[in-house]
Amino acid sequence: MDLIGAAVGIVGGAHVERDVRIGDTSGLLGVAPVLARPASAREVSELVAWAYAHDVAILPVGGCSGYSGGVVPAFDGPGLAISLERLNRVRSLEPLLWRMEVEAGVRTATVQRLARENGLYFPPDPGAPEQSQIGGNLATNAGGPHTFKYGVTSRWVTGVEAVIAPGELVRFGGPLRKDVAGYDLRGLLIGSEGTLGIITAAWLALTPAPPRTIPVLAGYGSIAAGVEAVEAALASGVVPATLEYLEGRCLQLAPPPFLAVVPRFLVICEAESDTERGALLEALGEGAFSCEPGELWRWRGGVSLAARAALGEKLSEDIVVPLDRLGEAIEAVLEIGARHRLETTSWGHAGDGNLHATFMYDPADGAASERVQAAALELFELARELGGSVSGEHGLGLLKAGQLLGQWSVAAVSAHEQVKRALDPKGLFNPGKKVPRPAA
Amino acid sequence: MDLIGAAVGIVGGAHVERDVRIGDTSGLLGVAPVLARPASAREVSELVAWAYAHDVAILPVGGCSGYSGGVVPAFDGPGLAISLERLNRVRSLEPLLWRMEVEAGVRTATVQRLARENGLYFPPDPGAPEQSQIGGNLATNAGGPHTFKYGVTSRWVTGVEAVIAPGELVRFGGPLRKDVAGYDLRGLLIGSEGTLGIITAAWLALTPAPPRTIPVLAGYGSIAAGVEAVEAALASGVVPATLEYLEGRCLQLAPPPFLAVVPRFLVICEAESDTERGALLEALGEGAFSCEPGELWRWRGGVSLAARAALGEKLSEDIVVPLDRLGEAIEAVLEIGARHRLETTSWGHAGDGNLHATFMYDPADGAASERVQAAALELFELARELGGSVSGEHGLGLLKAGQLLGQWSVAAVSAHEQVKRALDPKGLFNPGKKVPRPAA
Repeated sequence: MDLIGAAVGIVGGAHVERDVRIGDTSGLLGVAPVLARPASAREVSELVAWAYAHDVAILPVGGCSGYSGGVVPAFDGPGLAISLERLNRVRSLEPLLWRMEVEAGVRTATVQRLARENGLYFPPDPGAPEQSQIGGNLATNAGGPHTFKYGVTSRWVTGVEAVIAPGELVRFGGPLRKDVAGYDLRGLLIGSEGTLGIITAAWLALTPAPPRTIPVLAGYGSIAAGVEAVEAALASGVVPATLEYLEGRCLQLAPPPFLAVVPRFLVICEAESDTERGALLEALGEGAFSCEPGELWRWRGGVSLAARAALGEKLSEDIVVPLDRLGEAIEAVLEIGARHRLETTSWGHAGDGNLHATFMYDPADGAASERVQAAALELFELARELGGSVSGEHGLGLLKAGQLLGQWSVAAVSAHEQVKRALDPKGLFNPGKKVPRPAA
Repeated sequence: MDLIGAAVGIVGGAHVERDVRIGDTSGLLGVAPVLARPASAREVSELVAWAYAHDVAILPVGGCSGYSGGVVPAFDGPGLAISLERLNRVRSLEPLLWRMEVEAGVRTATVQRLARENGLYFPPDPGAPEQSQIGGNLATNAGGPHTFKYGVTSRWVTGVEAVIAPGELVRFGGPLRKDVAGYDLRGLLIGSEGTLGIITAAWLALTPAPPRTIPVLAGYGSIAAGVEAVEAALASGVVPATLEYLEGRCLQLAPPPFLAVVPRFLVICEAESDTERGALLEALGEGAFSCEPGELWRWRGGVSLAARAALGEKLSEDIVVPLDRLGEAIEAVLEIGARHRLETTSWGHAGDGNLHATFMYDPADGAASERVQAAALELFELARELGGSVSGEHGLGLLKAGQLLGQWSVAAVSAHEQVKRALDPKGLFNPGKKVPRPAA
C-alpha cells in the first residue's frame, strides 16, 4: 500500500490532502506531498507506525504561528504532514484542582479563556492565541511577556501524551504536581520541536488568577537610561508580572496612545497589587505612570504588525543574553542593522534578557533580503559572544538550523545528537529542524 | 596504571581513600573500593575520562542526605566514588541580577543563606540543608514544603555544568532566564540521579524574598475534614507558599507546642501578606490560627526524628497522587500499615499530593523489617493504582530500582532506557540506580 492509501485507510479520504503548502510567520514555505488530519491520538500513532515502518518522514503541524519555520516541510524523500487540528478536545477541566487536560490541537486562546472563566490563569502568552495550538506551544516551549514572573510553558505542563518511534502512544507524567520517578522525558519532549515525537495531549497546571493587573510604564531618553530602569525594577523587591521594553524606532512606527511624545525607550511592568504598583512607580522613576491593561496590550499587540507594515516584511529574531549584557545587546542590534543598511529596531522581554531584534525590508528587494540574512547571522554570533542563546522562544526550526554549535560545545552538541538518535533512530521526525550543527 | 594510581595522579594521595562505607538516610549502606575527592570540575572530568576508558563504574557522592540510596555503592565490578565536597566554591553571586553560580559541593544552607543575606530567596527546601549539597539537590530534583508555590529545584536552575561520557566537561544553559535553542538537556540531567553524568556546577535563579511569611494552621477531627480544608485552601484564590498536612499518629509522637489538644489531622499553610492570611484563615475554617514561623518550622523539622525515635527506625516514602485522590491515599497508607502490623503515619506536601508515608519499626526485629519492605511494595502499587508516582522527591535510587514499570508503560520505559544508553553507552554512571524495570 502507498502512503496515500495508508493515510486514507487510517483517517478517511475526507481528511487526507495532497501537495499542501505550509508556511509560518518566518515567511518560509514548503509543500507536503501528503497531509493527514487524524481525529485522535490513536490515529496519530497508526499514521506514525505506518510511516516509521516505511521510512516516510513525519511533520507535525499545529497552528502555523511559529517564527522559525519549524512547521515548514523540508523533506528530502517521502514525507507525511500530520495536522493536529482535529485533536481539539478538552479532555478534562477541574478548576478546584487547578488542572486541565487538553489535546494538542486546542487553541491557546481556548485554554486561556477556560482558565479565566473559572477564576484561574494559564500564564504562557506567546501571541497569536487564536491561531496557535497548545501542542505547538509545547513543541517550542513557548514564552511571552508573563514568562518573566510565571515561567515558560514547560513549567505549566505536568504531563504529556505523545507518539514516539516507532509509533508508540506513551505518557510521561500526568495530573501530578510532582514526579521524579523517571527521567524528565516530559521536559525533553517539550521544546523538541516535533523532532523526538508528536505531542498529542497535555496535562496543564493552572493557578488562581491575580485579582488585578496594573501596567506601570515609563519612557526614557536613551537606551542606557531605560536599561537602568529595568535594573531598578529588579531591585524594587517586587517580581513584576512583566518586564518589557520597546526601542524607539518601533515606538515611532506604532506610537503609544498613552504618551504625548514618543520616547527613545519604553519600559512596561505589570503590578498585581497597589503595593506592587507603588514600588514599581518608584523604581521606574520620574514620569512613570499606570494605564488600563486592555488599552496597553491591544496597542502592544499591534507593534509587530506595524514593524512588518513599515517596508512590507520583517525578520524578528529572539536572541537571549545574560541580564548584565542587555543594554550592550540592544545597542549592538542597531549597529548590526546600520552596517547592513537596514531599518532596525527591537523590543522584548527585558527582564528575561530576551530581545526581538527586528530588521525591516521590502520583500521585492532581493538585495535587501540578502542583507537581512547576513544581519541575522551576525545577530546569532552576537548572542553567542555575549554568552547568550540564539533563541529564547522561537526555537531553531528551519531558520536557525545549525546555529546551536558555538553556543554549545562540540561535546554538548554530540549529546544532543545522541538523544535524537536514541529516540528517533531513523531520523524521520521533522527532518531538517532543530539541527544543532551545520551540515558537513 | 591501576585505579588507585590514576586517582592519586589526578587528585593527589591526600584525597584518595580505599574501602569507604557510604550510606544515606534510607539505612542502606555499601562500600566503595576507591573514593576520590577532586578539587575542580577539570579533575572530575579527568577521573571520569580515566574510569570510562577503563570500564570502571562511577558513583557521584554528595551530602548523603538522600532517602533512596542513590549514593550507596552498588558496583558489580570495579568502581570509583567521586565526592564533590571540595567543589565548594560560589563562583559568582549577583544579587541585582537575581543569580548565582555555585559548584556542586556547596551546601544547600549556604545557597539559602547567601540569597537571604542579599534580600533574595532560593525556594527549594528539601531538608537537612546543612548536610545536603546543591549538586545532590539537582541530581534528585529536590522539592520541599515551598515547592507548592515556588516549584521544584529544576525551576530555579538556568544552567548546569556536568561531566558526561566519556569524560567531557559540558554546559547546558547558563546565566540565562530563557533558552530554547537546544533540547532541554539541563532538565534531563536534573533528576537523573547521577546516572547520565556528574553535575559539577549550576547557575541558579533567585527571586526577591517575600517580605513576610505567616503560618496559618488548623487541626481537624478526621482525615476527611482535613482534606476538605486542603481543598478549601485551593479555592481561596490564594497560592499559599506551603500547603502541608500531618496525620494524627506523628502529631502524637511530636505534639505541636501551639495546640492544647493533638488533632487527628493538621493543615499548615503559609501566607505572605495580611490579605493572604485573612483568606487562608477563612478557608481553613473555625479554629484556624497563625503562629510564629520560627517556632512552627523548628517543631516541624523534628517530626521526622520523633517518628524515627518511636521504635528506633522508620521508612519514609514519598509517593504522589492526583490531588483528588489525596484523602483516599492517606487512608490507604494507614490500612497498608495495619495489614502489616506496623506503626504507621504520614505527613507531607498536601497541595502537591505528595505523601511521606512512614512505617516505624525496631531495626533489631528482622520480621518487622521484612513487613516494612512488603508494606513499601504495596505503597508503590497504591501510587500506581491511583494514577500517581512512586516518587515525588526522593527519586528511585537503589531502594525503588525497578519500580517505574507499571507507572510508565513498556514503551515509555524503553524510551527511558534508550536515553540512558545514548548518554552512557557503557552503563558506568551510578550503576544499579534509577533502573526503571526489574532485572529480568
